[in-house]
Amino acid sequence: MKKLAGDKSVLSFGIRRMHPAISPMIDRSAYIGGCDGVSSLIGARTINKNPTGTIPHALIINMGGIENAVKAFDKDIDENVPRIALVDTFEDEKFESIKAAEAIGQKLLGVRLDTPASRRGNIVDIAREVKWELKIRGFEHVKIFVSGGLDEEIIPKLIEAGVDGFGVGTSIANADTIDFAMDIVEIEGKPLAKRGKYSGKKKLFSKLDNGSVIFKVEESNKEFKEAGFKESLVPIIKNGEVVYKEETPEEIRNFVLSQLKEIDEI
Amino acid sequence: MKKLAGDKSVLSFGIRRMHPAISPMIDRSAYIGGCDGVSSLIGARTINKNPTGTIPHALIINMGGIENAVKAFDKDIDENVPRIALVDTFEDEKFESIKAAEAIGQKLLGVRLDTPASRRGNIVDIAREVKWELKIRGFEHVKIFVSGGLDEEIIPKLIEAGVDGFGVGTSIANADTIDFAMDIVEIEGKPLAKRGKYSGKKKLFSKLDNGSVIFKVEESNKEFKEAGFKESLVPIIKNGEVVYKEETPEEIRNFVLSQLKEIDEI
Amino acid sequence: MKKLAGDKSVLSFGIRRMHPAISPMIDRSAYIGGCDGVSSLIGARTINKNPTGTIPHALIINMGGIENAVKAFDKDIDENVPRIALVDTFEDEKFESIKAAEAIGQKLLGVRLDTPASRRGNIVDIAREVKWELKIRGFEHVKIFVSGGLDEEIIPKLIEAGVDGFGVGTSIANADTIDFAMDIVEIEGKPLAKRGKYSGKKKLFSKLDNGSVIFKVEESNKEFKEAGFKESLVPIIKNGEVVYKEETPEEIRNFVLSQLKEIDEI
Amino acid sequence: MKKLAGDKSVLSFGIRRMHPAISPMIDRSAYIGGCDGVSSLIGARTINKNPTGTIPHALIINMGGIENAVKAFDKDIDENVPRIALVDTFEDEKFESIKAAEAIGQKLLGVRLDTPASRRGNIVDIAREVKWELKIRGFEHVKIFVSGGLDEEIIPKLIEAGVDGFGVGTSIANADTIDFAMDIVEIEGKPLAKRGKYSGKKKLFSKLDNGSVIFKVEESNKEFKEAGFKESLVPIIKNGEVVYKEETPEEIRNFVLSQLKEIDEI
Amino acid sequence: MKKLAGDKSVLSFGIRRMHPAISPMIDRSAYIGGCDGVSSLIGARTINKNPTGTIPHALIINMGGIENAVKAFDKDIDENVPRIALVDTFEDEKFESIKAAEAIGQKLLGVRLDTPASRRGNIVDIAREVKWELKIRGFEHVKIFVSGGLDEEIIPKLIEAGVDGFGVGTSIANADTIDFAMDIVEIEGKPLAKRGKYSGKKKLFSKLDNGSVIFKVEESNKEFKEAGFKESLVPIIKNGEVVYKEETPEEIRNFVLSQLKEIDEI
Amino acid sequence: MKKLAGDKSVLSFGIRRMHPAISPMIDRSAYIGGCDGVSSLIGARTINKNPTGTIPHALIINMGGIENAVKAFDKDIDENVPRIALVDTFEDEKFESIKAAEAIGQKLLGVRLDTPASRRGNIVDIAREVKWELKIRGFEHVKIFVSGGLDEEIIPKLIEAGVDGFGVGTSIANADTIDFAMDIVEIEGKPLAKRGKYSGKKKLFSKLDNGSVIFKVEESNKEFKEAGFKESLVPIIKNGEVVYKEETPEEIRNFVLSQLKEIDEI
Repeated sequence: MKKLAGDKSVLSFGIRRMHPAISPMIDRSAYIGGCDGVSSLIGARTINKNPTGTIPHALIINMGGIENAVKAFDKDIDENVPRIALVDTFEDEKFESIKAAEAIGQKLLGVRLDTPASRRGNIVDIAREVKWELKIRGFEHVKIFVSGGLDEEIIPKLIEAGVDGFGVGTSIANADTIDFAMDIVEIEGKPLAKRGKYSGKKKLFSKLDNGSVIFKVEESNKEFKEAGFKESLVPIIKNGEVVYKEETPEEIRNFVLSQLKEIDEI
Repeated sequence: MKKLAGDKSVLSFGIRRMHPAISPMIDRSAYIGGCDGVSSLIGARTINKNPTGTIPHALIINMGGIENAVKAFDKDIDENVPRIALVDTFEDEKFESIKAAEAIGQKLLGVRLDTPASRRGNIVDIAREVKWELKIRGFEHVKIFVSGGLDEEIIPKLIEAGVDGFGVGTSIANADTIDFAMDIVEIEGKPLAKRGKYSGKKKLFSKLDNGSVIFKVEESNKEFKEAGFKESLVPIIKNGEVVYKEETPEEIRNFVLSQLKEIDEI
Repeated sequence: MKKLAGDKSVLSFGIRRMHPAISPMIDRSAYIGGCDGVSSLIGARTINKNPTGTIPHALIINMGGIENAVKAFDKDIDENVPRIALVDTFEDEKFESIKAAEAIGQKLLGVRLDTPASRRGNIVDIAREVKWELKIRGFEHVKIFVSGGLDEEIIPKLIEAGVDGFGVGTSIANADTIDFAMDIVEIEGKPLAKRGKYSGKKKLFSKLDNGSVIFKVEESNKEFKEAGFKESLVPIIKNGEVVYKEETPEEIRNFVLSQLKEIDEI
Repeated sequence: MKKLAGDKSVLSFGIRRMHPAISPMIDRSAYIGGCDGVSSLIGARTINKNPTGTIPHALIINMGGIENAVKAFDKDIDENVPRIALVDTFEDEKFESIKAAEAIGQKLLGVRLDTPASRRGNIVDIAREVKWELKIRGFEHVKIFVSGGLDEEIIPKLIEAGVDGFGVGTSIANADTIDFAMDIVEIEGKPLAKRGKYSGKKKLFSKLDNGSVIFKVEESNKEFKEAGFKESLVPIIKNGEVVYKEETPEEIRNFVLSQLKEIDEI
Repeated sequence: MKKLAGDKSVLSFGIRRMHPAISPMIDRSAYIGGCDGVSSLIGARTINKNPTGTIPHALIINMGGIENAVKAFDKDIDENVPRIALVDTFEDEKFESIKAAEAIGQKLLGVRLDTPASRRGNIVDIAREVKWELKIRGFEHVKIFVSGGLDEEIIPKLIEAGVDGFGVGTSIANADTIDFAMDIVEIEGKPLAKRGKYSGKKKLFSKLDNGSVIFKVEESNKEFKEAGFKESLVPIIKNGEVVYKEETPEEIRNFVLSQLKEIDEI
Repeated sequence: MKKLAGDKSVLSFGIRRMHPAISPMIDRSAYIGGCDGVSSLIGARTINKNPTGTIPHALIINMGGIENAVKAFDKDIDENVPRIALVDTFEDEKFESIKAAEAIGQKLLGVRLDTPASRRGNIVDIAREVKWELKIRGFEHVKIFVSGGLDEEIIPKLIEAGVDGFGVGTSIANADTIDFAMDIVEIEGKPLAKRGKYSGKKKLFSKLDNGSVIFKVEESNKEFKEAGFKESLVPIIKNGEVVYKEETPEEIRNFVLSQLKEIDEI
């Protein structure tokens, strides 16, 4: 996702799709995996960040319209909070965007299109049209954000249409289950395993090769290390002591991003 | 199309899709084929009807909004002209419909959704939502019309969502070409035809059978007439005199509609 | 799954496929949804049951073969624990089944085929062959259990082959995410909702109809109740008091099973 | 079509497939689009050419065979009219071709295969066989023309089989309808357009780029002209005077053919 | 094939497609399987029949045309040999059929269409056209035979077009290989078989049930016989004596045809 | 098949799938086509070779297990016969392979996996696992052979898994029928052929070109020979004398193998 978005920002909106017991972990995983921010308070805490968001539909409905909502928000909210207006509440995205821009001018950082499914004929065309209409009226500085049902297919098209950022939920909130098993492979040093399992204790080595991770089961330590492989499993507890230095989400994320550059396709 | 729409009205919007030299014929054919009205002046003249239509986008844009446009139209236009408001100009269909209904109340006959493709996520859902919102505010009398890219697939779904009428253009404005040929099949009464053509003069008979028209080439006149077949080709000119009584579009259309009742599927 | 298995037993083996934070809930949900037992200690506790299982591969590997393992288990383990032998460790399922049956005879309740993927050409044929071989040697009482990668496709075929019970993991351990949203639909009693949402407070009614649950948004309470609909949402907390009597997993499961009978297909 | 045929000749046989009111325009369009000739009198007049054709089936049937027909035609018809024989009337294309060639020898310009659908197993094989049979008998000068249901798929195969020219009808006689609309985009110089339309008056620029025409809406006149774009719309009437010099069909056709050379694929 | 053809005749033309060592057996198998005749001398001998065929292309080419060939054949060949003319040699099937019929009138039993692939656009249409042209000229008695690349798909369409008989070669000349194996299943009365094979000596029973043959392995002789099953394997040699009475091809074929009546679909 | 197997050995097991009248020819053809050996006595005689095979299931079943069978075979059979053990009779391939290797050590040439279909989940994984288990116990010299349902798809994967040889039956035991015909193409030197056939006597030339054989009908002998074409048809009998020197299967096979090297793909 982040790979596709390039230098555009991607926020995790995934927290409300799964059981609350694992929601904060979803936000944390989204951040580690490359998202630029998260939207839940508790998820943000797991990564030592502030949560991010936009002026909500609720405010616009209560204030009776986008202009009032944007002006009120701009008047009362700490000026460090970015002014991003949701522009699909009552009117068409095009006209709500123009109204939001005309209401607070240069202070409007961006507009967010969260168009409901029944109006989402071609969100790429809508985004392109909103950008054109803002520009022809002198609001080239207003960024375009899009959210709602985004996936890997549509993000490249939206980037091409000039979109500046994305809010992604469902498509990063779940993952396929991974089958695995624990098995006995040696009895007191002698290799022995059930049918379908390879006998003998093994070491797992991996290296990044031409944009994809390859794993090999050890055949000769030395030969493998020369070929650039690293042992994949590292000790966490030794003799009752934690010997593993935990990395911060920031460190893990930077490692992921550094790897993304070497990967060709997702 | 008319078969699918049942007792709902269908208007022909097909005239502007083809070469102007055959446009009036398209409107006439649409009427004969079951459409309830046509939208062009010259097409209407071929069937001795008044053209029909709705309050146009141009008026709404010039008047600055749906409320002004509806009120002005209601004030100045002959009261025999039905008040039907296009509700997709500036704002969402839902809110423009409410505004149009609140502007002239019981005098509003209907609203027309001509939603642009980029906003047409699910026009069936939009129509159902507009109907709900009008009803919850007491405007159950307002009819819902839909136009724009309609075809045989979507009309049954729209009827189920409570839509009352349709404007259909492109999907009835063209037809597949039909291959045909003229061939010599007899020389002075003796059957002779090139390869691939059946020799001998023939008569064509047809009858409506279980909902589809079947054609047979004459084998014995008498036997065929007893089986309910009628000769398909009738003389138009005999000895220089026109012997065929031309039917009005109305008569042809009524014949078509009477046949539609016997047809199972299209 | 339970619907397909009919009166055959189905055990949940799903717990190890997902994040441990929600594993016990998976076992509980599997039981509620119709599984006859669960395999994890903590999952079993959530439903007040004993966990169930079979003689493991580990014992067979350590004892050096199925005969020793079955005999030792039979000698030392509480006789209330059913004797079910895993028969795919060293030899072919057919011969390990015969050996297990010959080792403890009538005391063997069943054999479990957990055949590894690389040997699983046609598990239905293997199960049918094992059943034949046990029967031709006089062990008709031995039940056949199958586990490993089972899904809705294969269970009916296994039942037809004479299998008596199933262990199901991955295919019931996950679920599709469900999109939902919270929205403002009224301001102080007046219906108002953003584009794409229906205005006005609603009540949700449902009833079981011809084997599938149908939902309707209230139009008239009275009319709905006469048609057999029940309100779908019930109060849980009123004035700070919990007014909802929690049902036991047993009660929920029985309700689910009673509904399964009325459902035609899954 | 012409692109595929290369230096082979292509005639338009499209006129009888559509309504007679637009038939002459079809012939004119076919010629402009690259066809080398047309077959109808009135179509030919629109392009200031003579219509072209072959000895018809009717003559062959009336004369009782290909030999008589070819000889009679050769005897009585102006020698400027090319002798091209239709060779699928009574006998197989192979034998009628041989008879036509033997009848008038060097004066036979070509034969035309208009094989009926029921005999058209593999028209490419038939054409190749006819060419072989003519050549083995010393009539290498006779050209092979094919007509009847030709399309883009089969023409390259026919060229490879040695065919010298084509008569194409149905597949160039119709075109998909093009959706378009007229819209208000400015009110007295201020940009304003309905939802789904881009506000503001625009200029359309185009250029031929790597074999396909690309269109751009003006952003900066100057920048566009430097990039090789030309304004696509030109004035036809100014102050009541026609200011546009109409081009002859010949000039337009030459322009089209010059563009075809730069186009890679159709 | 015979099932599809109903009371129409089907000849086996299959002998030349396979290795000559098994060709006679192909003709014999075709006859047993329902074909009405075979075309090779040696194949015919295996079934005690005369081979059947038609006037060959070779005669027509040598005689210079269909009329000469038919007349010569009719003059010199034993009058018990049916006069069936191949009508695709030089001219179109339509005209050669007419010429053959006009040459010997009532003595012409039928015409055979063996149209080459390159002319076989729609052999069903050709057959229907030939039948029409013969009938319109008073030759209703001439039967239509078709050969060349026939399969199960096209035969029903040809029957509907009025075809009276078929010559079928390639599509009945080969068969899929059937995998089978010989295995040890008992050692001195004790059931024992390798993995994947069922232990113990078995008897095979079969019966015709609702149009398809079902096989069962014996479980109880008595029960099976009451259910209408018959033992599928019968002794051929006992104590060195042949105890099996061989049936004639005629008897086997009649048995097959009697079964065909009970079979619904092939 | 041989092309895919490269320097691995391929044996023909095809003889029992077809009619016994042509079985020896199948073995001969398999050998000529590149197989390294055949398994039937009579097939082997056609190529002057000894038939090859492995220790059969029957011996293992009669001896009560793989160890006894391997030891007995090793003790009593001529030491020139290679010791290859079938390892899928009673136990898993993995354990029977280990037992066979432990029974006669260095004298075991190889093991053959003839796994029954119902256990053949992933024969590639099984082969790889057997190889690993033999190697980890010091039996790297034991070759792996696989048989049973092998085709072009799976052989490359098996080679990659380390398999050393293959036994192939069904997939090389049959061939598609080839349509061909005999036709008159000249009458006393004058070209004449029926519709769909090319007139005139022809010579057929062929050459191997870029890995595929191309055929050309003679146009000019000289020109063709310069382009490297050779006449494809050679005289076998001249004036009653056999003038063709028959090649041995060995010679033909060597010719085929030499051609295989120049062919890119099969």
